Amino acid sequence: MATEFVYKRRVQFAETDLAGIVHFSWYFRYMEEAEHAMWRSLGVSIVAPGHEVGFPRVAATCDYAAPLRFEDEIDVRIVIEALNRRTIKYRCTLVRGSTTVATGTMTTACVDKRPGEPLRAIEVPEGIRELFRAADLLT
Amino acid sequence: MATEFVYKRRVQFAETDLAGIVHFSWYFRYMEEAEHAMWRSLGVSIVAPGHEVGFPRVAATCDYAAPLRFEDEIDVRIVIEALNRRTIKYRCTLVRGSTTVATGTMTTACVDKRPGEPLRAIEVPEGIRELFRAADLLT
Amino acid sequence: MATEFVYKRRVQFAETDLAGIVHFSWYFRYMEEAEHAMWRSLGVSIVAPGHEVGFPRVAATCDYAAPLRFEDEIDVRIVIEALNRRTIKYRCTLVRGSTTVATGTMTTACVDKRPGEPLRAIEVPEGIRELFRAADLLT
Amino acid sequence: MATEFVYKRRVQFAETDLAGIVHFSWYFRYMEEAEHAMWRSLGVSIVAPGHEVGFPRVAATCDYAAPLRFEDEIDVRIVIEALNRRTIKYRCTLVRGSTTVATGTMTTACVDKRPGEPLRAIEVPEGIRELFRAADLLT
Repeated sequence: MATEFVYKRRVQFAETDLAGIVHFSWYFRYMEEAEHAMWRSLGVSIVAPGHEVGFPRVAATCDYAAPLRFEDEIDVRIVIEALNRRTIKYRCTLVRGSTTVATGTMTTACVDKRPGEPLRAIEVPEGIRELFRAADLLT
Repeated sequence: MATEFVYKRRVQFAETDLAGIVHFSWYFRYMEEAEHAMWRSLGVSIVAPGHEVGFPRVAATCDYAAPLRFEDEIDVRIVIEALNRRTIKYRCTLVRGSTTVATGTMTTACVDKRPGEPLRAIEVPEGIRELFRAADLLT
Repeated sequence: MATEFVYKRRVQFAETDLAGIVHFSWYFRYMEEAEHAMWRSLGVSIVAPGHEVGFPRVAATCDYAAPLRFEDEIDVRIVIEALNRRTIKYRCTLVRGSTTVATGTMTTACVDKRPGEPLRAIEVPEGIRELFRAADLLT
Repeated sequence: MATEFVYKRRVQFAETDLAGIVHFSWYFRYMEEAEHAMWRSLGVSIVAPGHEVGFPRVAATCDYAAPLRFEDEIDVRIVIEALNRRTIKYRCTLVRGSTTVATGTMTTACVDKRPGEPLRAIEVPEGIRELFRAADLLT
């Protein structure tokens, strides 16, 4: 049993669309904000100084269970579903009060980002793995 | 064999992030733009006058194969993978030149949207089904 | 001398562009988020139940003094520069630590929003004026 | 009398908000898209290879005259109002049919962008000035 990291967020006006609910693309940004807040909680930034390592997305999914509206307050719960050699897969649950409004996943590769060269997959740094383990974030 | 609808799009500056590539959330908007352009090509708008019928997302997925950069020109190919009683599932392929940069899906419910009442699933109108069939958009 | 309302915000990844800094359009959203948080601090929502009153923008300006980067923490200070019969003009100052990164304004009209009718300018409700005065938000 | 460059654009779903109209921050992106299309029409990209020169915003303004709605088709007319030593000021007019929906300005500095160093204002390259003149874009 892993320990989920919880990111709190309020729905903003510009995130809604003419249907009066949050546009579906925003759920992916909520999940990403939770991911980056989780990294900060470990004392690190996903954008390392010098930017030599990057974490582009390989895949993303979201299942929508209930609409979100302006000024709703949500918890984005995030945990690591799979930590592979060169990829990290996060699982997120978006909750408003006692209602699950969405569940989703984001899979990121770990890449070497030398300027002027194509992205090249590398191993997730051991220091990062160790932080995830120490915080009990692995399912 | 269905006939894909093709939507042409150029990557804009505000769609990139500090990694120098298009933010992953934008691929979902590209797919949605293609969906709405496809509807227009059939002579209808996804936002009907009066707005009594809506098409909120039930699920969305994207698999990323290659990064997109500022001013890239892409084709978003869209087709209907599954037309169920109350849902429509689209399949999209994003292509730059001869390179597939991403594939994705969007599943939408068809709902009744009376003001002040909760969303209620209804059947996809027969008129819409007929337009999809006539345009050979069903796989 | 009015009392500024202060809204705290952290820069998110999707708000940056390929230049590595926050895209200029986002400053307007930061200002709007501060506006809506200020309303909430007065016990009201800018989106009233029933939505019969709306506040579309008439004008917006921003002067940029310094770039913002990923994970920067900013204060958005907001105050009402002019409260006219049918418009509200806000003035905002975006500050990171002791550095002013931008100043801007947003002018909104107050409108009647009956469904199916064009927007019609009306007077800013007296109850709202009173809340602004009581909170000393008028310059 | 300068010759305006005209950029054509259709309003997309994700650009609307719960008020049923385009969010005010999007007008700035429409203006920027027009700017970059204008540069492309001159045979150049605003993002030069190597990225050593950048054009961050110094100021932006917009006056809103009429709301924009989903699927509206607009022309964004852009011209250079002032070409100074180190800054370029654009003036834009957003038009739907025969209705002016907004007018705005964007002022950009020209900067040197060496990695790891602060942005430093430099002169707008003479080659760019020449292209603007040859296309009769200066008011």
